[in-house]
Amino acid sequence: MPTSEQPESGEPPADGVRDGSPRREFLRRGVAVGSAAALAGLAPVTRAGFAPPPWMTRPGAPFANYGMPSPHEKAVIRWIAANSAVPGNGLSWTPLQDLEGTLTPSGLHFERHHNGVPQIDPAQHRLHLHGLFERSLSFGMNDLLRYPMVTQQCFIECGGNSNSGWNQEPLQVAAGSLHGLASCSEWTGVPLSIILDECGLQPGADWLIAEGADAAAMNVSIPIGKARGDAMLALYQNGERLRPENGYPLRLVLPGWEGVLNVKWLHRLQASAQPVMARNETAKYTELLPSGKARQFTFVMDAKSLITKPSPGHRLKGPGWHEISGLAWSGRGAIKRVEVSTDGGKSWMEAALQQPVLPRCFTRFRLPWQWQGATAILQSRAIDDTGYVQPDRATLIGQRGRHGYFHYNAIVSWEVAPDGSLRHVYA
Amino acid sequence: MPTSEQPESGEPPADGVRDGSPRREFLRRGVAVGSAAALAGLAPVTRAGFAPPPWMTRPGAPFANYGMPSPHEKAVIRWIAANSAVPGNGLSWTPLQDLEGTLTPSGLHFERHHNGVPQIDPAQHRLHLHGLFERSLSFGMNDLLRYPMVTQQCFIECGGNSNSGWNQEPLQVAAGSLHGLASCSEWTGVPLSIILDECGLQPGADWLIAEGADAAAMNVSIPIGKARGDAMLALYQNGERLRPENGYPLRLVLPGWEGVLNVKWLHRLQASAQPVMARNETAKYTELLPSGKARQFTFVMDAKSLITKPSPGHRLKGPGWHEISGLAWSGRGAIKRVEVSTDGGKSWMEAALQQPVLPRCFTRFRLPWQWQGATAILQSRAIDDTGYVQPDRATLIGQRGRHGYFHYNAIVSWEVAPDGSLRHVYA
Repeated sequence: MPTSEQPESGEPPADGVRDGSPRREFLRRGVAVGSAAALAGLAPVTRAGFAPPPWMTRPGAPFANYGMPSPHEKAVIRWIAANSAVPGNGLSWTPLQDLEGTLTPSGLHFERHHNGVPQIDPAQHRLHLHGLFERSLSFGMNDLLRYPMVTQQCFIECGGNSNSGWNQEPLQVAAGSLHGLASCSEWTGVPLSIILDECGLQPGADWLIAEGADAAAMNVSIPIGKARGDAMLALYQNGERLRPENGYPLRLVLPGWEGVLNVKWLHRLQASAQPVMARNETAKYTELLPSGKARQFTFVMDAKSLITKPSPGHRLKGPGWHEISGLAWSGRGAIKRVEVSTDGGKSWMEAALQQPVLPRCFTRFRLPWQWQGATAILQSRAIDDTGYVQPDRATLIGQRGRHGYFHYNAIVSWEVAPDGSLRHVYA
Repeated sequence: MPTSEQPESGEPPADGVRDGSPRREFLRRGVAVGSAAALAGLAPVTRAGFAPPPWMTRPGAPFANYGMPSPHEKAVIRWIAANSAVPGNGLSWTPLQDLEGTLTPSGLHFERHHNGVPQIDPAQHRLHLHGLFERSLSFGMNDLLRYPMVTQQCFIECGGNSNSGWNQEPLQVAAGSLHGLASCSEWTGVPLSIILDECGLQPGADWLIAEGADAAAMNVSIPIGKARGDAMLALYQNGERLRPENGYPLRLVLPGWEGVLNVKWLHRLQASAQPVMARNETAKYTELLPSGKARQFTFVMDAKSLITKPSPGHRLKGPGWHEISGLAWSGRGAIKRVEVSTDGGKSWMEAALQQPVLPRCFTRFRLPWQWQGATAILQSRAIDDTGYVQPDRATLIGQRGRHGYFHYNAIVSWEVAPDGSLRHVYA
């Protein structure tokens, strides 16, 4: 690489430090940034730079009715872990380590199916409301499309996301394959409360039992307060109709609540005095505590964060300035603050939060970091607007014991080796 | 259709009107909504409703590494109008009439290409900065990926969007095929200002000439103030790397400015004392005014709005409550207010704006409307936070004359016929 015209590398000059903030330094000082640029091997523009590349010498590809990613991005996919004994049982992870910003492309939204993705004809699909209602009614999709709608961005996270954190040894896979059972979309649909009012809830209808139209007839129980609150009968995701694997043509969306409650392919809502005590709210999504009692119906997803860049599978190209970037979210509300440590939790710095910070959404955080080339342990810690602080691993295990399988939200640690590689550690 | 258990149809009861707002009436009163529901043919739940549909009797489809829309949505596509004389010259429209919410799925983002979509190998693609800089530098994509990033939602709109509005007769096509050269995405990339600082602008560098690496070598001139402001070197769109037709691997994004300036496949930025006077800023994207002078370098897209639901191609199923829903946006900032008329502009009602309202983004507006079954003319009018009011057609033509081809942003009118069908009219 030619170097003669490269900006000088090195420490940021003293006059570049206006407020002591490394972010300002990184963002505002050309020379400070230059230390990254030089190490990245920037080249001066030469006459060769103006020679047209091959794609300027021939017409490009034609228009397409529906676009797809570049073939050069074919490695950016959902990683699938399917149960070979049960068709369509398993999950696929959002590749968080390859993504940026706050939204998840619909094609990469995580999946958790119990018996595959039903191929539903929307003209035949109906939503039935029955049980403790004044009127039992059945809605076709065109009926629902006529109702007033709302649009809301929110994350959906599986209650089993991050559960390898309960393992004795840290699993060595990509960040998305550890924590990518979480995705963030813009949802549009009919407020469930309107449809409940159409049917008229009877006194004592404290629960709503929701069932999907998949071959597993997945069902769960939802407290009526959430159902009458911000619950949505979602018809659209990221502007277009839902994708089949996200519940086409109708999904129940409960912002901030665990994924399994956001019933896909929704076809039945039964108003009831009691929960149904379904498999996924008894045998699953509960945990035995050290006290001998079990946590059940926890519903809300606690605050979590992780650094997506850099993360295992990435490699720092050398000492100097790097941007640490990651995601934080909380089912309780908005992210208030994210702190980042590069020394395994001895000291913490406040990261910048990408605006606007929306409640129950992925929030992107960023912090510039000048890596000296030595071993470092990167961590992030989310604090939400209820004051909840993401716990470290020892604290979480202390509270929940060693029988946990779901709802793991402890601080995540990546160790940077002197060669720039990263691995998952418990620290 | 069974009707015995349907909620009663009819006028909303007097006690449903708490604040005189039709939206509250529509949203809060089950019975008021019921007038829509009954007309839509809601059915009571019967035993037959619990018979499992065919997709509950067999396992569903397997997991997919990258998801796609349902085959039942195959009509929701970009409508292509390509120039058969020049390969890859033409455009494709976002089907706004089929979408909801505020974001455009990347696969449906509008296209305007001059010589097709170059198939670029990102490992070979470079951004060259030269001209009136202290240092001419060339950046590979991996170089850029190391810089600090920002995330911003904004619309991109072609300066030629809506241009059939200049026609003598209203064109009878879908709303998206009239106004769908506009789309809204979340973009993430490196602030251009950082890269300009790396190279060091020389005094007198008042313009930046940007060129794409397509076979047309599309180029334009950008005032240095915008380049040093909120301009972004975008690498990601809606969370993942850019799609090829949106500039993969690098696009210049200038929030709020006309689409042609958001150069796709960006490979060259030349700092210059003067604009380059390229074809697309002289022969195109300018307009001869009645005064004999031409408007040139107008840059900012004026406020616009349109009703997407209902719109031509839709059909109201009968009198009663319907939601009017549409999009508004302004290149100058945030949408402050959207007003809707159902009587061709004689009277106006304020629509609800979906929160959060973000500057230079699509803003979804909604208004409940009780259609009486007679001919009606639906219109929307956007007002942005600079006080700019979207003009009616006569006013726009009065200001610009009859030689316009670009930058049409007048109020759009849909006529509802007694049979519920809609057509485009000038009103």
